[in-house]
Amino acid sequence: MSKPPVITLLTDYGLVDEHVGVCHGVIARICPSARIIDISHGVPRHDVHAGAVLLMRSLLFMPVGVHVAIVDPDVGGRRGAVALLTADRRILVGPDNGLLWPVSRLCGGIEKAYDISESSAALDTLSATFHGRDLFCPVAAELASGERLSDLGRRIDPGDLVTVDMTVPTVADGVLTAHVVGVDEFGSVQVGADARKLGEIGVKAGDRVSVDSNSGVPFEVRVARTFSDVAHGVALLHQDSAGWIALAVNRGDAATRFNLSPGDTLKIRRVDG
Amino acid sequence: MSKPPVITLLTDYGLVDEHVGVCHGVIARICPSARIIDISHGVPRHDVHAGAVLLMRSLLFMPVGVHVAIVDPDVGGRRGAVALLTADRRILVGPDNGLLWPVSRLCGGIEKAYDISESSAALDTLSATFHGRDLFCPVAAELASGERLSDLGRRIDPGDLVTVDMTVPTVADGVLTAHVVGVDEFGSVQVGADARKLGEIGVKAGDRVSVDSNSGVPFEVRVARTFSDVAHGVALLHQDSAGWIALAVNRGDAATRFNLSPGDTLKIRRVDG
Amino acid sequence: MSKPPVITLLTDYGLVDEHVGVCHGVIARICPSARIIDISHGVPRHDVHAGAVLLMRSLLFMPVGVHVAIVDPDVGGRRGAVALLTADRRILVGPDNGLLWPVSRLCGGIEKAYDISESSAALDTLSATFHGRDLFCPVAAELASGERLSDLGRRIDPGDLVTVDMTVPTVADGVLTAHVVGVDEFGSVQVGADARKLGEIGVKAGDRVSVDSNSGVPFEVRVARTFSDVAHGVALLHQDSAGWIALAVNRGDAATRFNLSPGDTLKIRRVDG
Repeated sequence: MSKPPVITLLTDYGLVDEHVGVCHGVIARICPSARIIDISHGVPRHDVHAGAVLLMRSLLFMPVGVHVAIVDPDVGGRRGAVALLTADRRILVGPDNGLLWPVSRLCGGIEKAYDISESSAALDTLSATFHGRDLFCPVAAELASGERLSDLGRRIDPGDLVTVDMTVPTVADGVLTAHVVGVDEFGSVQVGADARKLGEIGVKAGDRVSVDSNSGVPFEVRVARTFSDVAHGVALLHQDSAGWIALAVNRGDAATRFNLSPGDTLKIRRVDG
Repeated sequence: MSKPPVITLLTDYGLVDEHVGVCHGVIARICPSARIIDISHGVPRHDVHAGAVLLMRSLLFMPVGVHVAIVDPDVGGRRGAVALLTADRRILVGPDNGLLWPVSRLCGGIEKAYDISESSAALDTLSATFHGRDLFCPVAAELASGERLSDLGRRIDPGDLVTVDMTVPTVADGVLTAHVVGVDEFGSVQVGADARKLGEIGVKAGDRVSVDSNSGVPFEVRVARTFSDVAHGVALLHQDSAGWIALAVNRGDAATRFNLSPGDTLKIRRVDG
Repeated sequence: MSKPPVITLLTDYGLVDEHVGVCHGVIARICPSARIIDISHGVPRHDVHAGAVLLMRSLLFMPVGVHVAIVDPDVGGRRGAVALLTADRRILVGPDNGLLWPVSRLCGGIEKAYDISESSAALDTLSATFHGRDLFCPVAAELASGERLSDLGRRIDPGDLVTVDMTVPTVADGVLTAHVVGVDEFGSVQVGADARKLGEIGVKAGDRVSVDSNSGVPFEVRVARTFSDVAHGVALLHQDSAGWIALAVNRGDAATRFNLSPGDTLKIRRVDG
């Protein structure tokens, strides 16, 4: 096969220290032909929920391969370590703390799950604090080299995996209730609801909506297609590139202006006239 | 051909979010053999001028290939999207907002220009806000795979492209007038003038010059070859690695000391004695 | 040979500017098949000691290849430029300022040393300030392409290389004296002593130790195996992933809490009971 095997990495390691570089080195030693794609290493430290959201927004744009995700506040503790074969033939590798769960739904669900916490692929240096280097990346590299999942882990029941509650938006009495799931580098606020939910409260592009939050004063904002539909400094509610609802300010910072941060609850309704 | 095709990326996306990783994934899906080189993703957000300067300083050091640049404040608006074949056989891909224009001069000029805003290569998900993922990177990856420009866009007249005024330094009455075009991470101030302009005002290494700016107090500084020619904490004017004039402080921060930022005007003259 | 040649990069360039991207481009032009691994570009600017520590913690996890390291406050001055062949067949490339010295011990020592400051591999543009682009990366890429060290530099005596004093921990009267060698992104404090030194002062996991520093108030802390052995917000002394002593706070910032930074001296002793 002419395509090199692909391994993607998503972590909360940041890019200042050597951690990401060491993971690349470990993979390259085991599987020199692997192509490594860094999805992001900027997940807020220990924020499993934010990491899960980021995976949901990005994974389906990656080639099918082995996908390592590490946001692991309990590294070295009792949490499990798993490799999951999904219906769309991807393999997800990471801690069993819910990080991999939501994206596995987007991949068609989990066909087989393996406990890799005592995998023979682990480095001899297996440390208590750096399982990216010592466990997850070696397992991923062996898989990319053609090793079989069943030789690298112990089959477990997918029903025993740790799950997380991703916020589920609700619609009642013309009000859409949803949560802030992230704030990007530009201060745009990601709302945990598919943009089609706006239709369920009778809202279309060009309409105005009022937004109540539990963290700031209520405000009104226009629903627009893109930043340039409003003037500089003006806020807008729009469908972001992943098809979700987002709140932004053209060339500005919506999170700061409206005092919003992940976890906040928003109540959105149509404003007449 | 043994050399893999090369795609370079320059954006203002930053490295915290998943945007750059998603662009890599999209390219790898379409053209698995492409080698991707990240020139920088640290262009100040929406600063087309800074992105254009950064391209000018870096592009000729890249292998000949497909070069994507995205600093795109009007994404989703009416600005065009283009692919430009240069005289030195590079292909530049990005928004038609002037970003690609200055560097195209360094590449020998534009031989052919194509409007790709309605390219068949665009992803089905074509969004209003993430054209890096949905348009520019897919087009670049198809080109790297061997697709022809003429099949991916509509031929247009290069004379219709948006251009930008890059600051042009002037010399009159022994005074060199130029602008600050950038400040690097270390606080070194990049001046938009070839270092040979110093000769035109009779200045050589070892001389002292006075510098007036529109943003701070006037100061004098020595012209030196490199940082270590002056003591720690001492300022110097020197020829930077791109052959341009730069103002620096040995192990210090010149931008802060002299209160300079991009766009400021500098008037430089020789100090006698 | 099916394995692509490997070049690793470690610098203090940061990832905002184009410097790292330009280094990648220069290498790809000379040796298109080279696989480049970025160990880190986040070394504190001009901090040769921190760069040397980071190399020691990471290099042995890299495939054997050409390893470029650049933390180079005296670039363009009289400092030498070298390529070092180690006993384990790695080639280390960088300035002769001590940066490469400590890690060369971990590689079994230096077999042959070459002065490359006037190497024929240097770019014609050889600048006074960007030797990563103009000298070190071109030399590394030629080596990765199969050129011989002896054709790229002038043989010198390894005994003439600049060395650095890495902090050496000492044990006397039941007190372990060591230095802070780094603080990671999470505020964990890296101590320049192998964790086995704790045994020499009679300390084992579960014990408490007192820590005196020259920069803050004395404190006591428990010796634990990993973060999750203590409650959130509680400090611990542990063996880090490189086998060294580290001081951390579970989900907190130890450097800030205890007012510690690189260079500080710590005196560690066992607390009875």
